[in-house]
Amino acid sequence: MTLLNLPTPPVLVAIAAEYSPVILSGVLLSLVSIYLASKIGAEVAKKIDFPPVLGELVAGVIVGVSALHLVIFPEAGLTAQDSFLMTILQFVNQLTPEAAAGVFEAQSEVISVLAEIGVVILLFEIGLESDLRQLKEVGIQATLVACVGVAVPFAAGTAGLMSVFHVPAIPAIFAGAALTATSIGITSKVLSELGQLKSKEGQIIVGAAVIDDVLGIIVLAVVASLAKTGEIDVINVVYLIISATAFLWGSILLGSLFNRLFVRTVQSLETRGSVVIPAFIFAFFMAFVGSTIHLEAILGSFAAGLVLDETDTRNELDELVKPIADLLVPIFFVTVGARVDLGVLNPMVPENRSGLLIAVFLVAVAIAGKLVSGWATFGQAGLNRVAIGVGMIPRGEVGLVFAGIGSASGVLSKPLEVSIIIMVILTTFLAPPFLRLAFGSSTPTTTPAES
Amino acid sequence: MTLLNLPTPPVLVAIAAEYSPVILSGVLLSLVSIYLASKIGAEVAKKIDFPPVLGELVAGVIVGVSALHLVIFPEAGLTAQDSFLMTILQFVNQLTPEAAAGVFEAQSEVISVLAEIGVVILLFEIGLESDLRQLKEVGIQATLVACVGVAVPFAAGTAGLMSVFHVPAIPAIFAGAALTATSIGITSKVLSELGQLKSKEGQIIVGAAVIDDVLGIIVLAVVASLAKTGEIDVINVVYLIISATAFLWGSILLGSLFNRLFVRTVQSLETRGSVVIPAFIFAFFMAFVGSTIHLEAILGSFAAGLVLDETDTRNELDELVKPIADLLVPIFFVTVGARVDLGVLNPMVPENRSGLLIAVFLVAVAIAGKLVSGWATFGQAGLNRVAIGVGMIPRGEVGLVFAGIGSASGVLSKPLEVSIIIMVILTTFLAPPFLRLAFGSSTPTTTPAES
Repeated sequence: MTLLNLPTPPVLVAIAAEYSPVILSGVLLSLVSIYLASKIGAEVAKKIDFPPVLGELVAGVIVGVSALHLVIFPEAGLTAQDSFLMTILQFVNQLTPEAAAGVFEAQSEVISVLAEIGVVILLFEIGLESDLRQLKEVGIQATLVACVGVAVPFAAGTAGLMSVFHVPAIPAIFAGAALTATSIGITSKVLSELGQLKSKEGQIIVGAAVIDDVLGIIVLAVVASLAKTGEIDVINVVYLIISATAFLWGSILLGSLFNRLFVRTVQSLETRGSVVIPAFIFAFFMAFVGSTIHLEAILGSFAAGLVLDETDTRNELDELVKPIADLLVPIFFVTVGARVDLGVLNPMVPENRSGLLIAVFLVAVAIAGKLVSGWATFGQAGLNRVAIGVGMIPRGEVGLVFAGIGSASGVLSKPLEVSIIIMVILTTFLAPPFLRLAFGSSTPTTTPAES
Repeated sequence: MTLLNLPTPPVLVAIAAEYSPVILSGVLLSLVSIYLASKIGAEVAKKIDFPPVLGELVAGVIVGVSALHLVIFPEAGLTAQDSFLMTILQFVNQLTPEAAAGVFEAQSEVISVLAEIGVVILLFEIGLESDLRQLKEVGIQATLVACVGVAVPFAAGTAGLMSVFHVPAIPAIFAGAALTATSIGITSKVLSELGQLKSKEGQIIVGAAVIDDVLGIIVLAVVASLAKTGEIDVINVVYLIISATAFLWGSILLGSLFNRLFVRTVQSLETRGSVVIPAFIFAFFMAFVGSTIHLEAILGSFAAGLVLDETDTRNELDELVKPIADLLVPIFFVTVGARVDLGVLNPMVPENRSGLLIAVFLVAVAIAGKLVSGWATFGQAGLNRVAIGVGMIPRGEVGLVFAGIGSASGVLSKPLEVSIIIMVILTTFLAPPFLRLAFGSSTPTTTPAES
């Protein structure tokens, strides 16, 4: 089994055959570290009344390249020797440095793909939870808030980065795009705590956040595709916007036909996994199509979630997807944090100061750009426009998806990537207290409705 | 991002960075193929009244190297050009042959590890379902049946392979060990259909099958460890048997202390995944320990399952593990089938005939060796000993775990590996009709008890 002297491509084959139990050990140990970090982070965040997802992200930063070096990836010159877990594995299994390097690469690749599958499943779940019918009720006001809340931060962020900070066009567009999405989860949780979920402001915020998610994912698909080709061509941009929109709406329209087929198939199946396997065949197939037509895998799984949300098996599916998402989504959040090198923003190093200024700028645009969206509403006397604007501020998980995909595509410079993560963390931390302040200054304009 | 000219080890890093979306596409497409095959196979098997797991295995053979070449692995000289899925990916993404080779290796490595995680989770689930308290009731009779049913096929199989077929000692021991385990799932399903689950024979069969699982996993850990070192040393064998047994019983004993800690921890958690994440931290950690002390990862997750089976959260955990197992376990069964090259037993090729004889021999020993175990019972007048022996025949999923691990360790020759798979398929196909015949000739010796 000593194939190690073969030429370049089969290296992994040889390492995989020789060290397959060690690779599995490495993956298991990485997963144990990731799960411990995510659970401790989520629980601590919950105790101090912050969203659990932020705790998972910060825990990821702690176990990652910035601090403990438990979960690191072979990028930016890091090797097996830098990884604390690999040191353990190398000692226990008496690996040579070459074997350790091979095992480190193989297990990192597996964890990276698991994180990508995690975000595919996260968007599938968000799709399953987004109720398209609800959008019709909130209507035009929510659409206006969403569009302003996407356009203003995107335009201001991209223009500012290019003109003031001389960032090249593609990374500037990517960072601008990362400013667009609103986290529906965090906002709707705070609104429900304040008893404002069914107020007119609450309804507009939630509706706009759903539209924001859809717009944000289309923007992400377009921007990520631009990052792949590396050039901005007006025809290409128009083609991408049309194809991403067409893909999403096309799958939803075809979905209503597919729905019945899906429910009939699921009902006729008699073996274990009769709901979950067909659902994931559909989600993974759509993700594959999304990726193959040079958009994004997550656009496909999001569309699959929107489609299956309309079926009768929806509630059963929600329950079954939950434990799967619980197991795979934290891998994504923790590894996004683990890849962040906070060192690039250390204010003690003079070269880092421009990076710090970018972070401050992005946070300011992220807050101001969403705040103005409250004034996009019209004809509604007595509406709490500040509260609507503040409700759109938190970026949460969708902002992290941008940072994660930007990091994987290699288009973002390290300071820009870290600035985006800091923007996500700060907007998400600040929104709950701001929202309480904004609503505290006014009484609900409508009495809470039943639902 | 063109790091492709760096020296050997960072090849995967370069390929991973450049082609990360393509690797994800490949993994998604492989998973879609695997899930389609597993669901179609399971449903067809169910329709013709065979165990679904056999259908998944046969479907794996069909999509694998023996026929469709949809799911294949870079081993035994297979390259990206042999893979139908890679041909699609290469065409869609315009990959160079070198890039295609790298993507093929990376995605195959990910699927292999997912299959290994699948079997880790399968054994975790089997552990969760094995009720140790039940064993005390069936007691000595079941223990005797189990021990005879493990010892006779193991000794006869190993001795026959070495003396008649001149197979070297380690592969012969491995194949002999693959003859030991009984599939509790298949037998207990048929027994329950026959209304015999609570009869004395049924109780002995189920009890013996549980003990068989435990003995079989210990035997597997010992044999796989022998295969790794490549030499048989009496002291080493004694050490391995003691350490595997001590690991299993030690974790169960310590488990009763750990149980309370686990339940308290789970109850104090407030964020999503409060049961499932701690359970998988424990299962994966135990699997890591099992693998690190040179036994097997599955021994660890099996022990974790036995421990958590005793907790109050057991029923909730069972429900949560199900969809996760539904999603990951089929990857294991389908890839075991997909790696099987039926061509090595083609009777038209004269060189294959000794392999065919081995297959016939293994099937005969597998049936006869379990049949005699019925006569290990004593002092029970009127007991249907034939039915007990027949009930122990099906090998099912645990037999496949042996074949899969033997294949991964490289210790089994291709004909021997295929013979084991055929033995598993035939014993599992034959047991249900045989069991009906055996019980048809006698009335239940006891009336069905309540439980």
